[in-house]
Amino acid sequence: MSLNEVRKDYILDRWVVIASQRKRRPTDFVKAKEVKKPSICPFCPGNERTTPPAVLVYLKANGEIVKDKDQDGLRHRDWLVRCVSNLYPAFTPPTGGGVKVGEAGNFESMEAVGHHEVLVESPDHDEHPGAARVSQLVHVLNAYQDRFESLSSNAYVRYVSIFRNHGLDAGASLSHAHTQIIATPSVPRIIREELDESREFWNEKGKCVFCDVIEKEVESPRLIWEDESFVAFAPWASVHPFEFWIFPRRHQSTILDMTSEEVHRLAVTFRACFGGLRRLLEDPSYNFGFHMASDQRYHWHLEVYPRLAIWAGFEKSTGMFINVVPPEEASSSLREAVQKEEKELA
Amino acid sequence: MSLNEVRKDYILDRWVVIASQRKRRPTDFVKAKEVKKPSICPFCPGNERTTPPAVLVYLKANGEIVKDKDQDGLRHRDWLVRCVSNLYPAFTPPTGGGVKVGEAGNFESMEAVGHHEVLVESPDHDEHPGAARVSQLVHVLNAYQDRFESLSSNAYVRYVSIFRNHGLDAGASLSHAHTQIIATPSVPRIIREELDESREFWNEKGKCVFCDVIEKEVESPRLIWEDESFVAFAPWASVHPFEFWIFPRRHQSTILDMTSEEVHRLAVTFRACFGGLRRLLEDPSYNFGFHMASDQRYHWHLEVYPRLAIWAGFEKSTGMFINVVPPEEASSSLREAVQKEEKELA
Repeated sequence: MSLNEVRKDYILDRWVVIASQRKRRPTDFVKAKEVKKPSICPFCPGNERTTPPAVLVYLKANGEIVKDKDQDGLRHRDWLVRCVSNLYPAFTPPTGGGVKVGEAGNFESMEAVGHHEVLVESPDHDEHPGAARVSQLVHVLNAYQDRFESLSSNAYVRYVSIFRNHGLDAGASLSHAHTQIIATPSVPRIIREELDESREFWNEKGKCVFCDVIEKEVESPRLIWEDESFVAFAPWASVHPFEFWIFPRRHQSTILDMTSEEVHRLAVTFRACFGGLRRLLEDPSYNFGFHMASDQRYHWHLEVYPRLAIWAGFEKSTGMFINVVPPEEASSSLREAVQKEEKELA
Repeated sequence: MSLNEVRKDYILDRWVVIASQRKRRPTDFVKAKEVKKPSICPFCPGNERTTPPAVLVYLKANGEIVKDKDQDGLRHRDWLVRCVSNLYPAFTPPTGGGVKVGEAGNFESMEAVGHHEVLVESPDHDEHPGAARVSQLVHVLNAYQDRFESLSSNAYVRYVSIFRNHGLDAGASLSHAHTQIIATPSVPRIIREELDESREFWNEKGKCVFCDVIEKEVESPRLIWEDESFVAFAPWASVHPFEFWIFPRRHQSTILDMTSEEVHRLAVTFRACFGGLRRLLEDPSYNFGFHMASDQRYHWHLEVYPRLAIWAGFEKSTGMFINVVPPEEASSSLREAVQKEEKELA
């Protein structure tokens, strides 16, 4: 299997994986207009053989959580969460051999060295992330931590992106709750820019720029949720209607810095916020992505982007955005929905 | 009418117009899932009163094209192209009075001063941009030039973005062919980055970076179309499947530098390329955007983004992209479709 190629724009700092392993012909796109339903769900228990072997499973044994992975020919059953390689990975581990990439000397590219995994969030096909058991969400968050730690330890990995696509409009082709994890050989642009600014702010003012933002936003009309460990708010310059961000109150650079009590609190926060989002907008499609950096001056957080509007020609060609829902109004209705959700949970 | 606000992200160089004039409630987004068809098309002749007055119309009088605009109460009929203010403008002209913006002192924002217009490309509701008469496309391109020149002349305008959203998936709510024009009070990020790199390249090497790119790409497998004045190719680092860019061969910084013969050639190029796109992918949704700068070191071009894949959690949270169609394969099938289109036209 040859590696994919990551190409750089002629002049912009914009990189794209040319994922030729997943060959698509023009006719595939025309057909794709019709919604296809797979006859079996590859993420449901019993269908483990339809996916690559698990790189991580959580199993329950004598009331304890045991972590394991699949052996080549064998597949674990009775798992609580299950993480496998993506069947069509955008990034793949180094093969060791020399790999020919691109048209030498013309334009810039590098090998798409890394990992691309799918984390199945529940054995129950119908356990919706906005209505999941908090105990299950704790497993999911623990598995994020495990995979983040494991993937980050590879010398060729410079960033680990953990993201969820929920719903058709958000690019999810399967409805069984899952998260994707991509480990890349470079730090992506948005994270690098955030990190540069965080470092500069820290070096100049001796504190974290995001701690400063949190301090202001918990006092603003944009606040949606807070408890002793986490806050959620609609960001000042939301680029999506009903966008919200979740931050740990404590200054932490990655999710590995959380205590187990904080993991539990984050599961409760997820349940309340994604439950509220589902309630308010009738289960909208959304994407979320963790932002993390192994630098003490960075503050990790989660950004959630509901897919209610389309980035069109203006956004795509200029990099400037139009949002028709002021974050102050988004937060007001989200706050109310999250409170209702919380009341029902209690 | 108060001005919208353009807000800057806490730390990123990312700006968003908070377009509160077009108030949308959560229920509007839930309802929006059902496709609505307006009973009358506001862009069709006879319905001129359903839009704001035209800022530009082309009329035919004694075989000549006459340019005019609507007076307050009156509306022109029998137009060839018609440009009006957007009913829900993201940017609006300065009001003269002081306008309160944002929460002073907390985070960064500015007034959304500018213009937001819609250019109706044909009086014929069914004149599809991929099947239009070349003579009509010449009117459209001339109107782009006129509006670009007029809007650019305002002291408060720093950039004029001309873009088309074609099809539902590209954010077009109306099927009658139209282009949008947005004049902004700052140069948007993508253009600014391109301009910075163009200037640097020019200052270092004494030539245009895009002229250099064109020279390489016309010799590459990514070439789609060329004539004496224009070239179209799938860019090396395409971020969308079947993306293509159109460049004038002559070094020109904006569309105002075209001769009338070049405008005619661009109309032919549009007809061939958008006809080919329509033919190959069964009329896909797409966005296009002109990239221009009033700087002799910049080379204007048009970028076309078919909407066949979804930017999901990875793209949105990292700014890195995955494209499942290598540009070399996209160009091969597009080239063939464009050639067929050309043959039928000839």
